Amino acid sequence: MKKDYIDTSKFTKEELMDIVNVSLLIKKHIKAGYPLNVLYHKTLGMIFEQPSTRTRVSFETAMTQLGGHAQYLAPGQIQLGKHESMKDTAIVLSRLTDVLMARVISHKTVEELAKYATVPVINGMSDWNHPTQEMGDIITIFEHMPPGKRVEDLKVVFVGDCTQVCASLGMMITKMGGHFVHYGPKDFQLRGDYLDILEENCKISGGSYLITDNEEEALKDADFIYTDVWYGLYESELPKEERMRIFYPKYQVNMDMMKKCAPNAKFMHCLPATRGEEVTDEVMDDKDISICFDEAENRLTAMRGLLVYFMGVMDETIEICKKNMKG
Amino acid sequence: MKKDYIDTSKFTKEELMDIVNVSLLIKKHIKAGYPLNVLYHKTLGMIFEQPSTRTRVSFETAMTQLGGHAQYLAPGQIQLGKHESMKDTAIVLSRLTDVLMARVISHKTVEELAKYATVPVINGMSDWNHPTQEMGDIITIFEHMPPGKRVEDLKVVFVGDCTQVCASLGMMITKMGGHFVHYGPKDFQLRGDYLDILEENCKISGGSYLITDNEEEALKDADFIYTDVWYGLYESELPKEERMRIFYPKYQVNMDMMKKCAPNAKFMHCLPATRGEEVTDEVMDDKDISICFDEAENRLTAMRGLLVYFMGVMDETIEICKKNMKG
Amino acid sequence: MKKDYIDTSKFTKEELMDIVNVSLLIKKHIKAGYPLNVLYHKTLGMIFEQPSTRTRVSFETAMTQLGGHAQYLAPGQIQLGKHESMKDTAIVLSRLTDVLMARVISHKTVEELAKYATVPVINGMSDWNHPTQEMGDIITIFEHMPPGKRVEDLKVVFVGDCTQVCASLGMMITKMGGHFVHYGPKDFQLRGDYLDILEENCKISGGSYLITDNEEEALKDADFIYTDVWYGLYESELPKEERMRIFYPKYQVNMDMMKKCAPNAKFMHCLPATRGEEVTDEVMDDKDISICFDEAENRLTAMRGLLVYFMGVMDETIEICKKNMKG
Repeated sequence: MKKDYIDTSKFTKEELMDIVNVSLLIKKHIKAGYPLNVLYHKTLGMIFEQPSTRTRVSFETAMTQLGGHAQYLAPGQIQLGKHESMKDTAIVLSRLTDVLMARVISHKTVEELAKYATVPVINGMSDWNHPTQEMGDIITIFEHMPPGKRVEDLKVVFVGDCTQVCASLGMMITKMGGHFVHYGPKDFQLRGDYLDILEENCKISGGSYLITDNEEEALKDADFIYTDVWYGLYESELPKEERMRIFYPKYQVNMDMMKKCAPNAKFMHCLPATRGEEVTDEVMDDKDISICFDEAENRLTAMRGLLVYFMGVMDETIEICKKNMKG
Repeated sequence: MKKDYIDTSKFTKEELMDIVNVSLLIKKHIKAGYPLNVLYHKTLGMIFEQPSTRTRVSFETAMTQLGGHAQYLAPGQIQLGKHESMKDTAIVLSRLTDVLMARVISHKTVEELAKYATVPVINGMSDWNHPTQEMGDIITIFEHMPPGKRVEDLKVVFVGDCTQVCASLGMMITKMGGHFVHYGPKDFQLRGDYLDILEENCKISGGSYLITDNEEEALKDADFIYTDVWYGLYESELPKEERMRIFYPKYQVNMDMMKKCAPNAKFMHCLPATRGEEVTDEVMDDKDISICFDEAENRLTAMRGLLVYFMGVMDETIEICKKNMKG
Repeated sequence: MKKDYIDTSKFTKEELMDIVNVSLLIKKHIKAGYPLNVLYHKTLGMIFEQPSTRTRVSFETAMTQLGGHAQYLAPGQIQLGKHESMKDTAIVLSRLTDVLMARVISHKTVEELAKYATVPVINGMSDWNHPTQEMGDIITIFEHMPPGKRVEDLKVVFVGDCTQVCASLGMMITKMGGHFVHYGPKDFQLRGDYLDILEENCKISGGSYLITDNEEEALKDADFIYTDVWYGLYESELPKEERMRIFYPKYQVNMDMMKKCAPNAKFMHCLPATRGEEVTDEVMDDKDISICFDEAENRLTAMRGLLVYFMGVMDETIEICKKNMKG
């Protein structure tokens, strides 16, 4: 029975930890120079309704490193549900490829694709969530875990606009049992269905969450500060003047803000960043504080782990990695 | 001496059967999980004057599965005969790749490309024919051969508009010695040069063909019913109202029509389909009747066979496949 | 410490000759049918601000032949320095790929990319120069060296408009110690910074250069005649009427011109050519005189050598090639 990666809500903490762990193992294996061919001659079909350099490049590199190949179906080259029913497209692509990923405008699109496809489908971001980013982010957090802490002890704060990345971060942190905060202005806070999921996650994991515009509450003892652009996604972009009015200066991540957090708090950003708006150069370029480029690299780390997991070659991969790195 | 795959008329039944057979052998070999590297590190240049997801994806997957790589030259990225003479483009691409395919607007374009290229050229559809589809279709027909019948015993009926796929199906069936029928309205029937080729094919093969708008004549004892979209190709599309007036309801493939054919007659479609126009959901989704998704998969089956044949590695491939699958 | 290939001025003759030699060795090795995997599972990110079929296809084929993969980031798919600072893009792509190439509009762009990237960057042409073409051209010249001559004895003449290819040819020939001539109308001659570099090169190499509109001076004893299109690059194209007025007929490479050169002089062109403008069919199609298609193939020859050199696997490559071809 094929499994899809559409929403982390469908997975247990243990399942997600399996993906985190195999991702980290493969990363170590590849950095050590060992080749891996667990997806030898396999094809990933990448459907993009919107362009996304980072997602595309990291998936394509991942497939190459695993011995396979990724096909880039650019916006306009394939039109889901236009010329042909989504069902027919899903069935046909399942006959011609081994796994699919889709960056879609509407979440319903990737859900339908997964429903009809007979190969695994990975959600490369929708207007609802961004689960491959989620996976890369939690991997980055594990790599930069404050000494003596466990994921359950963490306070992770998303600052600014409630983008899909904000929602996804909240889902992942509460799933893992940590404490998640969205610190943003009232009209731009996570709400509705998202909060139901956070609530549900916390019940199971023992984690907690807080939505607030109170600086003190938000930043105190924060281990990770995360932000994203202010111009909004998917709908018409907010003009610069308006977004500055809404978010600036209160929600800009600068050195002052970082000092109000836990000592050694780290800065994260899904990128691209608009330097000078949601984050200052000083924070972003600080070698001790900023881990946003490690985070970017972990998009690739996550893609490899996800591909291995959903293609059903996790055990085989673990065995190869452990064997090669034993010596 | 390099050979090109521009038109099946240039090949004997025996040559085409070689491609069918090696295609089926490779399919079995890959489904059994054996790797094949007969095009190791080879490059296919794919030139598209018009987009075509199915053709592109199946060629690209085929190259990956054979150990090589396909380069996607999208519409607009390369302009045949515009900035540079076709001759120069053909010579240069022959120096930089190992084999070429082209989906062209005018058949003359792919003929010229083949004339000047020094590597094999495969026609990925023109305004005249669609020979890779032809190959996938005859493979599908062999896989679904009615018990006790040979290809020479078959009645294969194309219903509706005389698209390139209709023409190509006619050429392949008559080449193989079967009975081909185009069942369509008078102004949308195969004619002219196409009929000369069918005539010629039948003389050699013992097959026959019929162009008719008579339902009884067309459908009686039909083993395969094949259709394609009604909106036309290459020139300006027929508006929905007009095409419905011309083809509907007489030429819609529905359960009533299927019942007028031989028992166990199968439904084929090159896809994409406009469900509710040339075919009903009921027919298309019927697991016993509809083989259109097997047919879609066999685009890939055909591409592998064609690449192996025209790259001159057929014997080597057969040997590898037989050796691996002996056990 | 990573090295970039932005401008040949930064390299010594000896370093450039290393690349020429390893390029020729790999060419021989691959023509002999031996596989090479020195860039196994490595990824080249190809950034194109402007389309370029030849550059793209030759880089992509090169990566396949070396066991890796090239990602095509088409114009519009990635926007350098627009949405995201160049610095961030450079750092992120360095985390997700192993080597980058960029075809840019402004030379400053590729310089900045190289400055911030932590992986090697190769300049795939800018408004200043075209160093991969340069490398392919000098390889071609070595392959067609007149009997008894060394590169220091050659007279290489670029005819027509001072394009980047003209500038690059001048830089390479003077670097190698040969005699370079730009034969073109006064307002379209190499000047300024370019001449400083030629001057500097000649001082070190013992070569020489001449910028002239005097036919006799230019063509006498010329070993290679090189030309490029007349419509200009990067800025608005010159209309046909205007360019004919400027360059025609004096600077058209035709049989008359070739006869004024050394016996057995060869014709080169970076392509695409506008036949009938800067070169006649007669010259371009003459099998003894025209080496422009060998030159096109040597784009690929150069790309392999450059990739191997800048990826730090030259010694390993030489060893493999020599070992395989010994028998």
